Amino acid sequence: MKNIDLAKLNQDILNFVSERDWDQFHSVKNLSMALSVESSELLEIFQWMKEEDSNKVKNNPEVMEKVQDEVADIFLYLMRILHKTEIDLESAVRNKMKKNALKYPASQVKGSSKKYDEY
Amino acid sequence: MKNIDLAKLNQDILNFVSERDWDQFHSVKNLSMALSVESSELLEIFQWMKEEDSNKVKNNPEVMEKVQDEVADIFLYLMRILHKTEIDLESAVRNKMKKNALKYPASQVKGSSKKYDEY
Amino acid sequence: MKNIDLAKLNQDILNFVSERDWDQFHSVKNLSMALSVESSELLEIFQWMKEEDSNKVKNNPEVMEKVQDEVADIFLYLMRILHKTEIDLESAVRNKMKKNALKYPASQVKGSSKKYDEY
Amino acid sequence: MKNIDLAKLNQDILNFVSERDWDQFHSVKNLSMALSVESSELLEIFQWMKEEDSNKVKNNPEVMEKVQDEVADIFLYLMRILHKTEIDLESAVRNKMKKNALKYPASQVKGSSKKYDEY
Repeated sequence: MKNIDLAKLNQDILNFVSERDWDQFHSVKNLSMALSVESSELLEIFQWMKEEDSNKVKNNPEVMEKVQDEVADIFLYLMRILHKTEIDLESAVRNKMKKNALKYPASQVKGSSKKYDEY
Repeated sequence: MKNIDLAKLNQDILNFVSERDWDQFHSVKNLSMALSVESSELLEIFQWMKEEDSNKVKNNPEVMEKVQDEVADIFLYLMRILHKTEIDLESAVRNKMKKNALKYPASQVKGSSKKYDEY
Repeated sequence: MKNIDLAKLNQDILNFVSERDWDQFHSVKNLSMALSVESSELLEIFQWMKEEDSNKVKNNPEVMEKVQDEVADIFLYLMRILHKTEIDLESAVRNKMKKNALKYPASQVKGSSKKYDEY
Repeated sequence: MKNIDLAKLNQDILNFVSERDWDQFHSVKNLSMALSVESSELLEIFQWMKEEDSNKVKNNPEVMEKVQDEVADIFLYLMRILHKTEIDLESAVRNKMKKNALKYPASQVKGSSKKYDEY
């Protein structure tokens, strides 16, 4: 998986927003709504699809274009929220992974989705 | 905004999943559901909050811990989907930004949220 | 608020689905996805709107047509889930209202959204 | 499917909200967020479940209690939105069903989920 220059991407997003004078709409509340809406647009692609078919979408260029666009929109709004709330993404993720490891000890949950209501 | 070693993070996530034998639950369909659920948990934090208050959450450590955890969960599931679908995140994001620039020319949409139903 | 003949509506929905041979796609899992997607389409209408403007949409026929369509889609999928799971809507709602009354005693929560993370 | 006295239910909800002085939080925008959050809580129940297992939840009283509670929360917020926007639910639903019948003619879409991205 290739890395991204997040500082440069963030600056490009800031320019895009500033050129359109859209920051006035980007309260953290509204951005959380937009992120949720984009996540649902990704969900919509898979709503009538069998699980096994969803695992093969990478072979379908037409569907993949939609998947890529929705994934991009999700990440773009996530970047906006990170910028506004000054969250360091890596710290947040590493911290959450430690919590998850404590919450779901491999020895106890192996192969079960029973207690698996969060990642 | 600091960068992340995505290859390393992806490997650590793969190990976490493998140790729990959870890959069997991670169809792309199910992962899109989980991502949407986590986005809603972020949304829930802001559902009764005034927009102006949502912009000040960075000063509230208690709320910020929840925000960081939800943002991390969203990104973790996004990483799972990227891995499964073999999407290159930067290409997807740059591609979508070009589409957005064409769809929302600064000269036409400046200061307006009217046509702004997507980022 | 006018009543609906739910038995008749349910029968009309069953006919609509049967004529299209769509029941094969309507697992409860898939219906819960579709319901969530429709809820997000309602959310999308309000994502950049000020709270006070959202309270005035009833005066805007153009927006109201979209709101009515999304509300209808949400209810149609809810009806599908009720039918599939054999839930009696009134019992479920009255039961939940009793739980809410115990969880949020008026004397304790009056005027506060603090503990108000559910209705 | 049994009918509900919607006028009485609406009045009981209004009393519940009024006793807690919660109407101040219930802008249509915020209610659309809450409805979406509740829909995701229903979604969460099914996120790791096989489709065929989701069709058998009605035989599982423990899961069904959660399903009933989420379905009730969804309907309660839908009732709030109907009241605030003065939508007549039956008109909205019947109107949308006519649109759906035109959009998805049985002869064309029978047995296919291809064009089936909405109900």
